[in-house]
Amino acid sequence: MRQRTKLAITITSILLPAHFAMAQSDLSALEARINELESRVASAEKTAQEAQQDAAAFEFTGYARSGLIANDDFNGAQGTGVGMTPVGGLGGHIGRLGVEDDTYVEANLIHRRTADNGSSAYYKIMLADGQESKNPWTADSSQVNVRQAFAEFSNLSSFSGAFKDAKIWAGKRFDRDNFDIHFLDSDIVYLAGTGAGIYDVQLGDNWKSNFSVYGHDFSDVDGNDIESYTVTMNNHIGQWQLMVNGIIAKDNEENGTNDAENGLHALLAYHADSFYGISDGFSKTGVIAGHGLGAEVKNIGSDGNLTDDAKSVRFFTYGVTRFADNWRIAPAFMTQYSKDQYQENDKFVWATLNVRLAQEFTDNFEMVYEGTYQYMDLDNASDEAKGSFYKATVAPTFKLSTAGGFFDRPELRFAVSYVDWSNELDGSYSINGATKTLGDGGEAFFALQMETWF
Amino acid sequence: MRQRTKLAITITSILLPAHFAMAQSDLSALEARINELESRVASAEKTAQEAQQDAAAFEFTGYARSGLIANDDFNGAQGTGVGMTPVGGLGGHIGRLGVEDDTYVEANLIHRRTADNGSSAYYKIMLADGQESKNPWTADSSQVNVRQAFAEFSNLSSFSGAFKDAKIWAGKRFDRDNFDIHFLDSDIVYLAGTGAGIYDVQLGDNWKSNFSVYGHDFSDVDGNDIESYTVTMNNHIGQWQLMVNGIIAKDNEENGTNDAENGLHALLAYHADSFYGISDGFSKTGVIAGHGLGAEVKNIGSDGNLTDDAKSVRFFTYGVTRFADNWRIAPAFMTQYSKDQYQENDKFVWATLNVRLAQEFTDNFEMVYEGTYQYMDLDNASDEAKGSFYKATVAPTFKLSTAGGFFDRPELRFAVSYVDWSNELDGSYSINGATKTLGDGGEAFFALQMETWF
Amino acid sequence: MRQRTKLAITITSILLPAHFAMAQSDLSALEARINELESRVASAEKTAQEAQQDAAAFEFTGYARSGLIANDDFNGAQGTGVGMTPVGGLGGHIGRLGVEDDTYVEANLIHRRTADNGSSAYYKIMLADGQESKNPWTADSSQVNVRQAFAEFSNLSSFSGAFKDAKIWAGKRFDRDNFDIHFLDSDIVYLAGTGAGIYDVQLGDNWKSNFSVYGHDFSDVDGNDIESYTVTMNNHIGQWQLMVNGIIAKDNEENGTNDAENGLHALLAYHADSFYGISDGFSKTGVIAGHGLGAEVKNIGSDGNLTDDAKSVRFFTYGVTRFADNWRIAPAFMTQYSKDQYQENDKFVWATLNVRLAQEFTDNFEMVYEGTYQYMDLDNASDEAKGSFYKATVAPTFKLSTAGGFFDRPELRFAVSYVDWSNELDGSYSINGATKTLGDGGEAFFALQMETWF
Repeated sequence: MRQRTKLAITITSILLPAHFAMAQSDLSALEARINELESRVASAEKTAQEAQQDAAAFEFTGYARSGLIANDDFNGAQGTGVGMTPVGGLGGHIGRLGVEDDTYVEANLIHRRTADNGSSAYYKIMLADGQESKNPWTADSSQVNVRQAFAEFSNLSSFSGAFKDAKIWAGKRFDRDNFDIHFLDSDIVYLAGTGAGIYDVQLGDNWKSNFSVYGHDFSDVDGNDIESYTVTMNNHIGQWQLMVNGIIAKDNEENGTNDAENGLHALLAYHADSFYGISDGFSKTGVIAGHGLGAEVKNIGSDGNLTDDAKSVRFFTYGVTRFADNWRIAPAFMTQYSKDQYQENDKFVWATLNVRLAQEFTDNFEMVYEGTYQYMDLDNASDEAKGSFYKATVAPTFKLSTAGGFFDRPELRFAVSYVDWSNELDGSYSINGATKTLGDGGEAFFALQMETWF
Repeated sequence: MRQRTKLAITITSILLPAHFAMAQSDLSALEARINELESRVASAEKTAQEAQQDAAAFEFTGYARSGLIANDDFNGAQGTGVGMTPVGGLGGHIGRLGVEDDTYVEANLIHRRTADNGSSAYYKIMLADGQESKNPWTADSSQVNVRQAFAEFSNLSSFSGAFKDAKIWAGKRFDRDNFDIHFLDSDIVYLAGTGAGIYDVQLGDNWKSNFSVYGHDFSDVDGNDIESYTVTMNNHIGQWQLMVNGIIAKDNEENGTNDAENGLHALLAYHADSFYGISDGFSKTGVIAGHGLGAEVKNIGSDGNLTDDAKSVRFFTYGVTRFADNWRIAPAFMTQYSKDQYQENDKFVWATLNVRLAQEFTDNFEMVYEGTYQYMDLDNASDEAKGSFYKATVAPTFKLSTAGGFFDRPELRFAVSYVDWSNELDGSYSINGATKTLGDGGEAFFALQMETWF
Repeated sequence: MRQRTKLAITITSILLPAHFAMAQSDLSALEARINELESRVASAEKTAQEAQQDAAAFEFTGYARSGLIANDDFNGAQGTGVGMTPVGGLGGHIGRLGVEDDTYVEANLIHRRTADNGSSAYYKIMLADGQESKNPWTADSSQVNVRQAFAEFSNLSSFSGAFKDAKIWAGKRFDRDNFDIHFLDSDIVYLAGTGAGIYDVQLGDNWKSNFSVYGHDFSDVDGNDIESYTVTMNNHIGQWQLMVNGIIAKDNEENGTNDAENGLHALLAYHADSFYGISDGFSKTGVIAGHGLGAEVKNIGSDGNLTDDAKSVRFFTYGVTRFADNWRIAPAFMTQYSKDQYQENDKFVWATLNVRLAQEFTDNFEMVYEGTYQYMDLDNASDEAKGSFYKATVAPTFKLSTAGGFFDRPELRFAVSYVDWSNELDGSYSINGATKTLGDGGEAFFALQMETWF
């Protein structure tokens, strides 16, 4: 046995090492390569993460539209725009498609920072310019200005309870919860200015509230810097939104007779995640009311010419849906009643109905149609105007992907519009110092335009 | 046999497992490490790609020059610049080296987006400012304005045939095919404004065409917004370029007596990929002609003061080559004949010859020399001027790599220039409302300047 | 033996291959996976590095403050600010906490490029705006301007010896070695303008020097562009700094009687890396003196109204330290004596003592306190004013990490300030054309503000 054992040992001693040595050296070689790979991967991970953090620290976002409009005399179409009718200054916009002639640009530069404790900061400035000139050097008419400059904190490590997810901010900004009817180029509420606030205080399971104060400059009378301060509370309870605003502007009566020194404003809105419950899409419906300085129901706290007795109520609804494989629709309706706005006994009533349709032909091309009907019954206390305004627009439109829907941008479009109005609206009409001149009616426009946001 | 077999089995059973268990556990360990590596690599790849996409979505490009010039009295050298001679307003630039005193900045913010279908969008805004003030707060003289804001689509998934590689755009922009003689700070054609167009329509194997329309604002007369529209076609056939432009400005005769309401303009150019066929480098040669609103042959469609009968023809050529190990040369020549431009019977003839030389000393330092000779024979219909202008400049120049050639930037330079002119050109001369004053002649300038683009 | 050997061989031949084949195929499989991993890692490394380089080529940095101040009448607090007292125009700032009412923004866009030879370039433009308006559209009062636009080279491959680490630059910029007392919103030296220079010439083991020239525009008199040129030398020897400036402004006497045409200016400062040698932190102490155009001791070379005989001397010191677990302190003191500044025999003496304290409560919240005492004894050669000014501010402050100390930003703060002054300072007082009006004294301010830099 010993001999045989020895024999077998000898045999395996002879044979195995040959195999094993090879295997072992292979293993060692592989192990060495794995070791090296592990350190290279660690280094690549670090580089990639740093690159990602570097890239994430900065963000560029923006909005722009730019184009030109010629009328049927082949002149520049002066005076077109969503606010071209006598109620434009009151917020009575017509549909925007094919009537916006300006180059309007918003460029946002954003910086993010996260501290070791996880608290993070968001800083944003917005540079903006808007003008009618088609020329490539517009220094003389430049409107370049800083519209926003604010910082907002979130994930604050020492915040807890109802404030756990709260965000706090200060600076000059557009309120986070502003929202708009894109097709009318009209915010539903546009609260903006310089101030501070807190967002997303959790007051209940399904209830978040925001509290802020915003300042505006009204004027500078005899060395008195008259500012308005808007205190705002915004509540989101499920899909309902209730916003309440109080406005105060000390010494504003020095500004003009009957000018209000305070105001109240409220919005009740329902944000539906379907198109009025009948199809996919979304819809938003609500009512806004204001008194005194609150009677400018959209641009909250920004109008210092309102009277003590001014009162306004506005109703709005709009929605977006797809109603066939290659058809989309977006109706919008807005109406307002205002009394004693800028003069005792002035009275303004108007309503706008706008419908936008899109018919998709290819990945990159769709026909877009828009029709507006606007009614107005105006009495500025010295002059009356009553009548209707009509607009119809057809816009062959290019985009990256028509499947992206109404809000996919950029879009490059050509547009032909026809506008007309009641004879009673021919000529000029003034509200709050802004004079709108409609001329003799019945005009066609030809437009080329780019629009983008990102 | 059984016993022996059993014996051998026993032996191997004893011996092998020891080796094998080790090998197998080694293998399993390695395999586990490889598994982990694979998932780490997948994650690092994703992070790196996302970082790359994030970085690629935004791009910052720009141009800037900034510096100061003192004359030999140690005052700021007012009135220097490429357009300092009486024909400056007609495009008769002198060599730019050592005479540009302004801080001129172009900052481009670019956003890219690619849709899932591969269609991609390029969005660019250009902010620009230009001014003479040396001070670090220039709000009062600020010229900050938005020169460009446009979107351009490419790779459109639904485009095919001649349009397969076509790009479409709209907004405010500098035409893509503008090109310049850098040394004269002069575009050869500068077509810019607000409009829309299509690039790179493939009309033949070797033939690409572009079609666009650009609007300009001329003026606002009695509420009439007078705009010009330039319809342009640009053909690239091999190294030949043929550009044809038609310009119309309805009602421009209301602007001033004899003001043209339309115009024609054409450019024929040859873009050679050698220095006139005699050495490496490149050269560009061509002729431009225009009538009516087309008689401003460089800034196409931007001059509303041209008469109905205005006619201009311009010839240009310039090239760049290396003629010794450490020497480079760039000659440029431009000449123009214009008649009935702004008045009946005005007549302007001028020619500019400019030569720039660079002598490389180290990686980072070169001496740059520039000489200009300009001849002019001017008759603005009420006053004549005829004579010559001379400039010589020496500029010790620092750059990152002199091997990069004439167009490598940034450059930091010191420059000494001497300018002189015929006595007949002393004093002031006006063309199209722009008055140029040359003074008594014979002046030296000392300049410090940074110039960059990227 | 043969048979047995054969037997054993047979046995091992039977048994081993089974094991070995498995091991070998395992090995091959692993090797293949490692091969693939290696190529994926190489590719991920490349992607990550490119992404990192892309991200590094651009950098966005900035400064901003934005907020609002209401006085105890609930009006905007017009006229507040660090320069609100009669010596504000002479650089006699009060503490900034709670008194700055403007939205001031600096946005820097930075581009980096490194050539193959290692030489690298840094290009920076700064866009800035500053204004009091609280409104979100400020085109009418916009101050947007380009404050800086310069390029700087470093690591120049052909530089050696004392110039090996030297950096050269040209353009419009703030001098790199400007430094400030943050709490007073006051630079200690602010040298800026358009010019060129060289930094970090190594003159000794512990001695680095900078040499630059900066131009400023004073005015444009009868077509004469009057500019000042400041030639500056800055020496850093260990923790000592010696700066010497010579200023010349040819023809400045045409600007106004007695206006200086040249000036001298010097700064001697000690930059300590401890709080006056008694605790951790830092402190900076020095003296600045100037004559003629150098008598504006902070904004070097920027004031063209100084007389031939103007002389000023300023002493400053400030420091920052932590004096308890959750308490920090930053005292600052600045005093100046000036004579014959803008009129023969005018005489201005002032001193400011400011103390800022911070008491940390949580990671994200601290109370900040600031007190200022300022004394002034002024004689503008036609009118005297003498007295004291007091300010006390309490500011509840949010930040990402209070552990970050006084210079961690962003900060969001609420502030209540009380300011008062001697009755003798009620009313208006003018120095160098700038009139400051303090009113009747004893006023409280309420402020909300964001401040950030990055």
